[in-house]
Amino acid sequence: MYQAYGVLGLTLGHSLSPFLHNCAFQAADMKRVYLKWEIQPGDLGDFMKAVRILPLSGASVTIPYKEDVMKYLDYVSPEAADIGAVNTIYWDKKILCGANTDCSGFMSPIKDMYLDSALVLGAGGASRAVLYGLKRRGISHIYLTSRSEKKALAMAGEFNVKSIPWDERHRIKADLLVHSTPLGTAGDLQELTPWDSSIFPFEIVYDLVYNPLQTRLLQQARAHGAHTLSGLSMFVHQALQQFETWTGQGFDPGWAEDLLRRKITGEI
Amino acid sequence: MYQAYGVLGLTLGHSLSPFLHNCAFQAADMKRVYLKWEIQPGDLGDFMKAVRILPLSGASVTIPYKEDVMKYLDYVSPEAADIGAVNTIYWDKKILCGANTDCSGFMSPIKDMYLDSALVLGAGGASRAVLYGLKRRGISHIYLTSRSEKKALAMAGEFNVKSIPWDERHRIKADLLVHSTPLGTAGDLQELTPWDSSIFPFEIVYDLVYNPLQTRLLQQARAHGAHTLSGLSMFVHQALQQFETWTGQGFDPGWAEDLLRRKITGEI
Repeated sequence: MYQAYGVLGLTLGHSLSPFLHNCAFQAADMKRVYLKWEIQPGDLGDFMKAVRILPLSGASVTIPYKEDVMKYLDYVSPEAADIGAVNTIYWDKKILCGANTDCSGFMSPIKDMYLDSALVLGAGGASRAVLYGLKRRGISHIYLTSRSEKKALAMAGEFNVKSIPWDERHRIKADLLVHSTPLGTAGDLQELTPWDSSIFPFEIVYDLVYNPLQTRLLQQARAHGAHTLSGLSMFVHQALQQFETWTGQGFDPGWAEDLLRRKITGEI
Repeated sequence: MYQAYGVLGLTLGHSLSPFLHNCAFQAADMKRVYLKWEIQPGDLGDFMKAVRILPLSGASVTIPYKEDVMKYLDYVSPEAADIGAVNTIYWDKKILCGANTDCSGFMSPIKDMYLDSALVLGAGGASRAVLYGLKRRGISHIYLTSRSEKKALAMAGEFNVKSIPWDERHRIKADLLVHSTPLGTAGDLQELTPWDSSIFPFEIVYDLVYNPLQTRLLQQARAHGAHTLSGLSMFVHQALQQFETWTGQGFDPGWAEDLLRRKITGEI
């Protein structure tokens, strides 16, 4: 009998999760399917009842529900509670659980790199998992900046990192630049970049945007000789950990990145 | 993107609907999947909310919800309203609709036979579709009997057919015998038959039980030279009509019967 998984969010037109998880279920010959659930905020409680009564076997959670789902779960992992966001719902026998795989997905491509300092652009939901991961990694100097100074100050206080005004971000020099605003994403924002200085004092530039694969920011970084990472790697690794949580099996992240690259470029 | 269909009921362990619809979706290379939803009676309202908000693309409805679902729908077909039962939920644009395909599924294998009289054994949910179909066909003499005389009297009144006490059923001679009680179904009831007389005055015996394919009743019928029909044919034709309602395409009923026969006998 088929088991149903899916992604819970508000607008999911561009989500690659259904494509990736369905390919992985099929490749493993599993009778599981991954659906899209675009839920209005007022319907979240009814959706979470549906998770229990149908039941749905598991869910990815995305904007704007990563915080709000927590109160409907029986258990939230300590990591997800510290990050303040759940991106994965799963069952442990009859217990409905929440976890966060964004942090380990984010850290996966940089886990073997030497890093002493980092500048994080953006103080939205994704930044929480980023800051949590960088802090846990023990990176000494972490700077946070956001176009909303209020948000940056609050989040910097919460994760005990240094807040920088947006207009002063160009003064920071760091091993790693992490970009977690939507600037540069396919569509109206594609031509935009969060970096408008001719100075580019970073060794590694990690853009959490994954569509397009080559954002303007990553083009700038490459022009300055920096090592670049796209959000695709984080995306694949957070999805891989979800897949493992749900099925007890993994998939090859290289296979998944290649598949998604071809999907994003329209090759398949 | 995948679309989710399924069967709504209380205990679905033996339902063949998921097997048949999933085979048909796959054979037609459709990105659709058919699930099982075992819902407690107190959760029916929440389930019907889930149908709207996820949304679910369609559902088969079985015992004990064929009557109760009606109040949650935007539209019920005149036929389903007359029968008093919905076995199919589908969307017509944004309108959530209910239909009944049991009646035409039942009539399908006998639609070209000459029939003047019929005896119906059993006054449960399935009997409603049977009586509605036989009446609409214009069969002159229709007799209804049930181990619950109260039920038989009420239903006979509703469909304007003649009620017969259970103990007097052997006195009736008819072209067609329809059996719609669970007697003879695989499990504890398999050795039972609703007919314990040595007289067998029917030309056609139609047992709505489809598992096992050869019930004791059909064995008796064959021994008396009657033409026999199993519930498999009705099952396939009601499912075919559901499939057409949901997808706009059909499947070959012969292919489906063969597939189910092999499934029921354990060959696949």
